[in-house]
Amino acid sequence: MKQFRPIDPCTMLCPVPAVMISCRGITEEKPNIITVAWAGTVNTTPPMVSVSIRKERYSHHLIQESGEFVVNLVDAAHCRELDWCGVKSGRDFDKFAEMKLTAVPAAELQYAPAIAECPAYLSCRVKSVTELGSHDMFIGEVVAVRVQEELFREDGSMHLEKAGLVCYNHGVYQQAQDVLGFFGYSLARPEVLKKRMAQYDR
Amino acid sequence: MKQFRPIDPCTMLCPVPAVMISCRGITEEKPNIITVAWAGTVNTTPPMVSVSIRKERYSHHLIQESGEFVVNLVDAAHCRELDWCGVKSGRDFDKFAEMKLTAVPAAELQYAPAIAECPAYLSCRVKSVTELGSHDMFIGEVVAVRVQEELFREDGSMHLEKAGLVCYNHGVYQQAQDVLGFFGYSLARPEVLKKRMAQYDR
Repeated sequence: MKQFRPIDPCTMLCPVPAVMISCRGITEEKPNIITVAWAGTVNTTPPMVSVSIRKERYSHHLIQESGEFVVNLVDAAHCRELDWCGVKSGRDFDKFAEMKLTAVPAAELQYAPAIAECPAYLSCRVKSVTELGSHDMFIGEVVAVRVQEELFREDGSMHLEKAGLVCYNHGVYQQAQDVLGFFGYSLARPEVLKKRMAQYDR
Repeated sequence: MKQFRPIDPCTMLCPVPAVMISCRGITEEKPNIITVAWAGTVNTTPPMVSVSIRKERYSHHLIQESGEFVVNLVDAAHCRELDWCGVKSGRDFDKFAEMKLTAVPAAELQYAPAIAECPAYLSCRVKSVTELGSHDMFIGEVVAVRVQEELFREDGSMHLEKAGLVCYNHGVYQQAQDVLGFFGYSLARPEVLKKRMAQYDR
């Protein structure tokens, strides 16, 4: 049997989504972007996400003030912008301008914009904020979703697996590739499996 | 500019981790495995994860009863087991036996076992349970982490990016591949970038 090596307790859940959160306060006009890997889906009905942010981050008070944020999914082509927005502060830079990203109105929201260059975004309204220690966990309800037209086929099916979405894996960014299967594929009859899997090869 | 298409509000945050949660109750001897994609890191200090589970799932009461669960990271070689454990119920099957997986004692825990075949696991103790609607969100503190020896190099560095970890991308399983960069790489000097990135090619 393979052997495990102990390491100190740490944030080792991998891979986690690496997303750009766009937001805007009420008193300030300038929108901001914060890169977050401490994000997850927490509920299906209604759809909810968690996003954890340190109190000292510039975006923290913008999100708390407006009660809104937008989760922008990121593709490999924008990994550099993703990283930069996670290292630099909105106190010092206009991140949209620096990264040549475009703030567009986000569906169903009043303050937080979406990032036009991202493959998809989720408009979220804050339902609760919980202090956990280093981070505050914002629970947001997903009130709108938009996906780039190019990720749809003519038959109306959406193919997010083609986007090369970025994830964070204990210090490095990787992209989601190679469709290994679909939900329930381990029980699919051979002909169903073959037919469904062929969709992902196109 | 590219165009967005609206879709109904949904659990669209992608990619999310696809992990096997192993657990055991106090009154029942049989351990169980539940596959979860609604999981995320929510805090760094102390390290905490969220795992959302429907009340009607068999594992829900096991975790509530023992106050423990183990997050087992999954590699592409075990994607079929991952999927199967997400579709079938522990009420009907001994999932460890059916999937030929090995339950081993999990570091720092009394009840929940770890899965010996997985590349890494996080032992977690439940800190809170929050009802969100369809799912209950368990917040767990990570009290121990173990990683397979084969993911370490002789210099002691850990290379989780080699594991081909599975993520869930809106209905399909993909694996994390292609190191795009490391945290802070957008600001690294060329020689540092070259040296660091070379580590991931070996």
